[in-house]
Amino acid sequence: MNAAILTIGTELLMGTTVNTNSAYLSTQLNELGINVLYHVTVGDNPKRMREAFDTYFEKVDMIVTSGGLGPTQDDITKEVGCASLGVELSIHQDSLDRIESFFSRLGRAMTENNIRQAYLPVGGTVLENSRGTAPGAIVEKNGKTLVLLPGPPNELKTMFESGVKPYITQSNSHNITSRYLSIFGLGESSVESSLIDLITEQTDPSLATYAKTGEVMLRVTSSFGSEEENNARIDKVVERVRAVLGNHLYSVENDSIEEYTSRLLIEKGFTISTAESCTGGLIASKLTDVPGISAVFDRGFITYSNEAKMEELGVSEGILKAHGAVSSECAEAMARGLYEQTGSDFSVAVTGIAGPGGGSPEKPVGLVYVAVYHQGEVYIKELKLSGHRERIRIYSMKTAFDMVRRIIENKWNGN
Amino acid sequence: MNAAILTIGTELLMGTTVNTNSAYLSTQLNELGINVLYHVTVGDNPKRMREAFDTYFEKVDMIVTSGGLGPTQDDITKEVGCASLGVELSIHQDSLDRIESFFSRLGRAMTENNIRQAYLPVGGTVLENSRGTAPGAIVEKNGKTLVLLPGPPNELKTMFESGVKPYITQSNSHNITSRYLSIFGLGESSVESSLIDLITEQTDPSLATYAKTGEVMLRVTSSFGSEEENNARIDKVVERVRAVLGNHLYSVENDSIEEYTSRLLIEKGFTISTAESCTGGLIASKLTDVPGISAVFDRGFITYSNEAKMEELGVSEGILKAHGAVSSECAEAMARGLYEQTGSDFSVAVTGIAGPGGGSPEKPVGLVYVAVYHQGEVYIKELKLSGHRERIRIYSMKTAFDMVRRIIENKWNGN
Repeated sequence: MNAAILTIGTELLMGTTVNTNSAYLSTQLNELGINVLYHVTVGDNPKRMREAFDTYFEKVDMIVTSGGLGPTQDDITKEVGCASLGVELSIHQDSLDRIESFFSRLGRAMTENNIRQAYLPVGGTVLENSRGTAPGAIVEKNGKTLVLLPGPPNELKTMFESGVKPYITQSNSHNITSRYLSIFGLGESSVESSLIDLITEQTDPSLATYAKTGEVMLRVTSSFGSEEENNARIDKVVERVRAVLGNHLYSVENDSIEEYTSRLLIEKGFTISTAESCTGGLIASKLTDVPGISAVFDRGFITYSNEAKMEELGVSEGILKAHGAVSSECAEAMARGLYEQTGSDFSVAVTGIAGPGGGSPEKPVGLVYVAVYHQGEVYIKELKLSGHRERIRIYSMKTAFDMVRRIIENKWNGN
Repeated sequence: MNAAILTIGTELLMGTTVNTNSAYLSTQLNELGINVLYHVTVGDNPKRMREAFDTYFEKVDMIVTSGGLGPTQDDITKEVGCASLGVELSIHQDSLDRIESFFSRLGRAMTENNIRQAYLPVGGTVLENSRGTAPGAIVEKNGKTLVLLPGPPNELKTMFESGVKPYITQSNSHNITSRYLSIFGLGESSVESSLIDLITEQTDPSLATYAKTGEVMLRVTSSFGSEEENNARIDKVVERVRAVLGNHLYSVENDSIEEYTSRLLIEKGFTISTAESCTGGLIASKLTDVPGISAVFDRGFITYSNEAKMEELGVSEGILKAHGAVSSECAEAMARGLYEQTGSDFSVAVTGIAGPGGGSPEKPVGLVYVAVYHQGEVYIKELKLSGHRERIRIYSMKTAFDMVRRIIENKWNGN
């Protein structure tokens, strides 16, 4: 089955909102064996929205929409989509009751425009919205399926999980199996060159590379037969990839390096603490994104100034004078000082120049030192990064996680 | 002039990458007075890509593409787009030289597949890529314009700034003027209800609301006449909006609350320090996203455990025993202890339960206390948030910034 994702919203076309719903829906639909062939975004213009429904209902079996179910004047997705499919709307009493009780629970009066949200496609399946007021719906006609979902990502995700996924699973037959391999420390072009034979000779499983900041994802997809057969074929390819890429391949579960390492720390029971200068809390923030991290992460320091490095971490004035704050020596002293304070299994320190200001010919923007203290040893990496402040900060953060990962997995080789 | 943004990439359709390029390009094109009517994403399938070019060249004057200019087998955007427009490709010697020197600078050998990147549209304008190897291009034919840009966001942005913007500015005539009003502390539905008269009676300027986590953006757009005339009309609407929304409206420059407040701190020279429990470095990380913050942000603490709160911030065991770590009392003690340590003008502390675990009937997931110490006073907010860990952390972080903003601007009223 082929699908198009149609996201509605002038805010997307104006660029004020990044379209995360399409990525989420794509991942979910692909996992359910539905090929997503198109993402399309239109505004709340009735004519162009109608054309989009008409055009893509010709090309695919299913259109999944996001947005335009709300109470405002511009919310017309349901009306236009159902008109394209030839389905009527009528008031749905349960939904109306639910919207009313939502407002009374909040102690607020229901505004008039919220009633529009209770009009739903005749003959369709209503999808309850446990996180907001706008219900969604699934309706089928003439072999075409229309799935109407709300725009706010948390409402959309919850509704997809609780309503759409069970609906689709019931009527599934075809298997597509994908695995995502995560690679750190190599560029996309270099990954592809190393694997060129594998990529060109393979038709099933197929391989494709995708670049993220500092990471490359390799997707291996099989639609050969049963899920078991597909997985067996994928296993073989993964082994060949592993033989080529070695320690750069860190996960076969579509993790970011920070998620992977955080979970590894929790799993192994290794405690960690952080002392951040140029990354300014980014490492700590990524750690604390992960539920359950409190078992191994107790505290962290952001030591932006020299004074903070001396007072909080005991870095000596001598080191700062002789080598400067952005130096291998200072990174090492930060990591050691952090360990003195916390006794953590891993004490991670980062110091560098994220820019745009602060660079010099000897110490340019992008020069970063990451130091990891572990069991009496200090592991240090010097990075010379190009790009903007954001990229430098992200790459430095990811390097810190990759170093910890390699040390835990006995894969440290200084690279 | 109307445009479509065509992003190419199976990784977008698979959902492994979020499409940030479309948002960036939309913002930029709208600012240049170009209406973006469509976002479309297709994979690296030649047939569907060709259909997309053909379809949208019928509907709009300009297609801007992102992705598919790289060296890999799947990179076919240039070939397919130019074929749709009826333009040939030929080798561009300067680009070939530039790619070769890029590799020699990195001390790496140029791989064979990089040569494809030097084929460019005949009669077009070549756009140099200062951050990568794939050049872009702009080519016009029969009143249609094709803009080919690379996929990696940093390459795309730099090329847009240095090549596309000057190209478009030269041939501009029509004016669209937009202003983005940023609102914190009210929901979208409530903003729209408050402003319903203004929204329905206005045709130019037009108003539209967009929700982000904890924030609402209100776009006010005029295409009445000259930029000056448009701005005068927008000014009047902004004053009416301000009268209705009061202190909830914090910026008319499309800032997030964290950017706005960070810049306000720098501007006023107020120092700040942070002590974070459930936000775990998120506030510090947002502060340090802003260049120049080192003038006012010296250090921060992540105090996840009770021990960390006691040892780093001097929170007394008595407070933790009597009220627990998630309490107004503990938040206050954290903020006061932080001030004792740092002497900052603003000492910001957050403690709460981000979930998914750790909640209880008395202290459910989503209960968060934010305390701000400023000039001898402690300002405290209790939040009862719904939603997931990520949303709770983000909303708490934004609340901290909003509290600091209100205190600086004398707009604190406990709400």
